Amino acid sequence: MATAAVADGYTVGVVGATGAVGEEIVSVLSRRGFPVKQLKLFSSARSAGKVKNTPLGDITIQEFSVPEARSCDYVFLAVDGDFAKEYAPQITQDNGPVVIDNSSAWRMDPDVPLVVPEINIAAAKGKKLIANPNCTTSIALMALYPLHKEFGVKKCIVSTYQAASGAGAPGMQELLDETKKYVTTGELPSNKVFAHPLPLNVIPHIDKFQDNMYTKEEMKVTWESRKIMGLPDLRVSCTSVRIPTLRAHSESITIETEKPVSADRAREVLRAAPGVKVVDDPLNNQYPMPLTATGAFDVEVGRIRANDVFGDCGLDFFVCGDQLLRGAALNAVLIAEALVKQTA
Amino acid sequence: MATAAVADGYTVGVVGATGAVGEEIVSVLSRRGFPVKQLKLFSSARSAGKVKNTPLGDITIQEFSVPEARSCDYVFLAVDGDFAKEYAPQITQDNGPVVIDNSSAWRMDPDVPLVVPEINIAAAKGKKLIANPNCTTSIALMALYPLHKEFGVKKCIVSTYQAASGAGAPGMQELLDETKKYVTTGELPSNKVFAHPLPLNVIPHIDKFQDNMYTKEEMKVTWESRKIMGLPDLRVSCTSVRIPTLRAHSESITIETEKPVSADRAREVLRAAPGVKVVDDPLNNQYPMPLTATGAFDVEVGRIRANDVFGDCGLDFFVCGDQLLRGAALNAVLIAEALVKQTA
Repeated sequence: MATAAVADGYTVGVVGATGAVGEEIVSVLSRRGFPVKQLKLFSSARSAGKVKNTPLGDITIQEFSVPEARSCDYVFLAVDGDFAKEYAPQITQDNGPVVIDNSSAWRMDPDVPLVVPEINIAAAKGKKLIANPNCTTSIALMALYPLHKEFGVKKCIVSTYQAASGAGAPGMQELLDETKKYVTTGELPSNKVFAHPLPLNVIPHIDKFQDNMYTKEEMKVTWESRKIMGLPDLRVSCTSVRIPTLRAHSESITIETEKPVSADRAREVLRAAPGVKVVDDPLNNQYPMPLTATGAFDVEVGRIRANDVFGDCGLDFFVCGDQLLRGAALNAVLIAEALVKQTA
Repeated sequence: MATAAVADGYTVGVVGATGAVGEEIVSVLSRRGFPVKQLKLFSSARSAGKVKNTPLGDITIQEFSVPEARSCDYVFLAVDGDFAKEYAPQITQDNGPVVIDNSSAWRMDPDVPLVVPEINIAAAKGKKLIANPNCTTSIALMALYPLHKEFGVKKCIVSTYQAASGAGAPGMQELLDETKKYVTTGELPSNKVFAHPLPLNVIPHIDKFQDNMYTKEEMKVTWESRKIMGLPDLRVSCTSVRIPTLRAHSESITIETEKPVSADRAREVLRAAPGVKVVDDPLNNQYPMPLTATGAFDVEVGRIRANDVFGDCGLDFFVCGDQLLRGAALNAVLIAEALVKQTA
């Protein structure tokens, strides 16, 4: 499909429309003014038939079916990897619609482009299935890639401060409910979504542990950064940590560069980078924070400073981006926007 | 002084007895069974005269005075740096008592030993004024020093997850009060103690910014690690971040070593290290967390894994220690314990 005239707009499907990412995709389609002719919201049988009030009007949720999904021009998958693995090929086959998949199912498939539009949208050209990166990766790369282009990144060490939204709406709800329980009754927080109670705690464990004792979440930052930036030998180590915040991920990043780097030059480069907001006025208490990055499209970058651990080739910085936006929905919608322009 | 017979025990003064660290010092003196003959609690005029219920009995708080402090054998200063700068010399002069100062006032003075007892207690021998390190530093060094002895640490990159207790009892109270306000009324959190609201937020700013755009808190980790370990050229970069937890600091640490290092060998070394508890069984969801490290004397170390950013000389690990214990009160009391043994 994907052949409707721009004047008419496109039929857009969102699969997993009742989840945190699905809801955010609809919101971003509206905020960005994506040319939607018709919006189809797909969910499991349980939610089907319910009317959902969205920024694009009241829409009756449909149970997902391949033929209905194939009737769209663009389909966003905001569902788990198993679902995406099974259904993405069925939706796209035989000149079906473009599918932008938010799960990790297809990201490392050599035939599937993994795209941050500001970095490698060219890889998506003519493709029917496009993978949206891991949230931590896409947020980090907004700063890392412009710095790489200018200075060359050799080594990258990342420690994350990840919000509950990475575990979806149930994760956010558990954090709020258990926090409320603790601060109002003194009863200790409990947990179902997270491996341990999250309120007032820190959990250095997101996704499954791998043989090398990194988590899969940590390795995604390595694998996906290499693929998106086209740097198969980039040295990356990430420590992924869940903390009690709602929906913006922060990351403390240290890099070693090929060419000498200074904080001033890095700041200049980042100011010119798309999708980045340099928030770096420490003497006026301005630096990236979930408080200010939540709900914003741009990734905040600050605390930019020379790090002499790597002589004159070291830089430290801190990024903060909305996990549901740049980390998911915004990146996905920007891919679709770019494809619309490519085909227009 | 400091000459009373051990059989009798010692007269111990705590200055700043109503603060978070002061209270914890009294608790640790009791938990460790420090030989206290008499406990004197000093505070400002405002609290003087009040009776404080402590694990060592009900004690009437006194207004601080130099002569009263000088009547002690050991004096713990749990007050700000300005106070310590002014009064520490007046208390110790002319063979006065031993003063163990928790502030940063004297830490970098070349004549004042800066001590983590498990590392460099020898530096305290015969000294009247001893500085207790910054909390982030002492917690990190419990793991870093044993690894250094075995493998040689060349580079060290630290990102912290610091609890509200670093800003004292008012910091902890603000976090709890503002969290409660937000989750029960929806009213946005406000702030007086911290630079920004802390509930559900992350603030990459602790202490003042320096000319190099690191904070003083971050530079303390560099300066104090070098002094305590006797490694003036150690390359350290720290990013200090306040997060919404109550009283245990976590730290994500990456090191480059002189000699090749493996996770297994590092784990062995750390299991044999005093003051360290290796909590590193990820497949059973066991790793360092504030939930388990709070209230414990030992610093938890886990998520130990080889980091190939530095070839076969890289290691990542995660530490978590009680900010008020290893980060303050416990370290101070252990210094006093060691001095008692030295003089016995």
